[in-house]
Amino acid sequence: MLRKLEDTLEDILRERMMQRAELHDAMKYTLMAGGKRLRPMLYLNHISEEMTPAFEDFRFAAAIEMIHTYSLIHDDLPAMDNDDMRRGIPSNHRVHGEAMAILAGDAFLSEAFTTVLYIIRDNLQFLPMAILLAEAAGMQGMVYGQSLDMLFEKEDVPYESVEQMVRFKTGKMIALPLEAAAMRLGYSGFRRRKIRQMGSLLGEIFQLKDDILDISGDEDELGKHIGSDALEGKRTIPAIYGLERAESIYAEKCSKFRAYAREAELSTPLLQFYEMILQRRK
Amino acid sequence: MLRKLEDTLEDILRERMMQRAELHDAMKYTLMAGGKRLRPMLYLNHISEEMTPAFEDFRFAAAIEMIHTYSLIHDDLPAMDNDDMRRGIPSNHRVHGEAMAILAGDAFLSEAFTTVLYIIRDNLQFLPMAILLAEAAGMQGMVYGQSLDMLFEKEDVPYESVEQMVRFKTGKMIALPLEAAAMRLGYSGFRRRKIRQMGSLLGEIFQLKDDILDISGDEDELGKHIGSDALEGKRTIPAIYGLERAESIYAEKCSKFRAYAREAELSTPLLQFYEMILQRRK
Repeated sequence: MLRKLEDTLEDILRERMMQRAELHDAMKYTLMAGGKRLRPMLYLNHISEEMTPAFEDFRFAAAIEMIHTYSLIHDDLPAMDNDDMRRGIPSNHRVHGEAMAILAGDAFLSEAFTTVLYIIRDNLQFLPMAILLAEAAGMQGMVYGQSLDMLFEKEDVPYESVEQMVRFKTGKMIALPLEAAAMRLGYSGFRRRKIRQMGSLLGEIFQLKDDILDISGDEDELGKHIGSDALEGKRTIPAIYGLERAESIYAEKCSKFRAYAREAELSTPLLQFYEMILQRRK
Repeated sequence: MLRKLEDTLEDILRERMMQRAELHDAMKYTLMAGGKRLRPMLYLNHISEEMTPAFEDFRFAAAIEMIHTYSLIHDDLPAMDNDDMRRGIPSNHRVHGEAMAILAGDAFLSEAFTTVLYIIRDNLQFLPMAILLAEAAGMQGMVYGQSLDMLFEKEDVPYESVEQMVRFKTGKMIALPLEAAAMRLGYSGFRRRKIRQMGSLLGEIFQLKDDILDISGDEDELGKHIGSDALEGKRTIPAIYGLERAESIYAEKCSKFRAYAREAELSTPLLQFYEMILQRRK
């Protein structure tokens, strides 16, 4: 399934290639640099509980990954987080220049929605899912979170504010594939609520693991420099409470997550997929 | 009608305002800085030939303007055209900082599509128009054109390449409102073809006037510095052939445009609107 997602991503870029390839190449550089594909695979794995993912499901999953990829490229820019490594290779602007990196991000966002609009033309059921996606990405979702992150660099904010920032910046686009899958499968009531709770907790878990790995992770495994949060004075759970306390908060959140997953009656393969996420080391 | 469009733009931003207003304020700064609203008004004025524009038409027009505004904010960035004035005031990043300017652009692009998806939910007729919009904006449209513009700064390209660049960078999003309006009104055959020809020629006319004004325009009227193209060594028609020859090419293009407009049987008010565009001095 991951292979088919990768093919879909390559197909979309190839279909829209123009005479001059520089923009296309800048986009491909980060898109095909071997990300974890967490967000699209969350969607596809949930879908697989009940059905064989259709062409539109792979395209929808690809749109999710394209939006995630645009956010990585823009977040790494000098004016933003100024990160020079990403997915084990120099970040986009370090290779393709700042102008092309900005444009590659802009293009991914446009192409994600072009992709989604074509899906809707083929299958109207995706319209409310597309609205969820657009809202998770925009000024009430991920972009709002990133704006808070930028503001908080210059402010002395309480930890609750940092948590809220993470809820938007990371949480919205991690909860989205679960919500969208629940919608696609027609879940309602108790099961839908549990999947929503999983999605929102998963964002916190994911961010906390990132913050822990930024202190205690392996640079080679991670494919980026560690310790950059501390250098920038970012207020993360391990920075505030220390690594040990952070690990125990992490364990608590994982227990709660596993309880939701049991209540949502997930299949064994899906539970195993989630265990891999909870126990990731990169 | 312009007033109602302005209200729609303000409404969309207000509806989506969050607790922290910085991102919203950065967006509002450029959106409400009194642009000409050329692109959305092209759409609305064409629609008005046959019907009273509906709520969805104003929203669609607003989405066009939001995409245009995002492109202005990103194009002005230091890594792109590095312009410090826009619409008579300092450009977005000069006031709100580069990070917030990048995010304001990203947010406009997301919100334009959120707006469009809600329109489609209310009126499915807008789906093919939304696809046109997404394609005009993306890696086969405006963003591709901007990537060519960046590349050509470092290359010695023939004028034909510059023309092709303009066709994407400026032309696609100027032709779009005409194409979308023709679709909305159900035009086909001869009339549709004439409107398509008008749209594509209008892009050239618009760019050529910009290039002429950049040499001979009034800084106060324009609200931006003139002579910046020459400073950057941009290959424009007046730069290559001189101002006088550029003016006569401009006059020829206008004649051709007026011929198409007559063949498309536009009403007198719409013809007058176009005359204002052809004769603009800012």
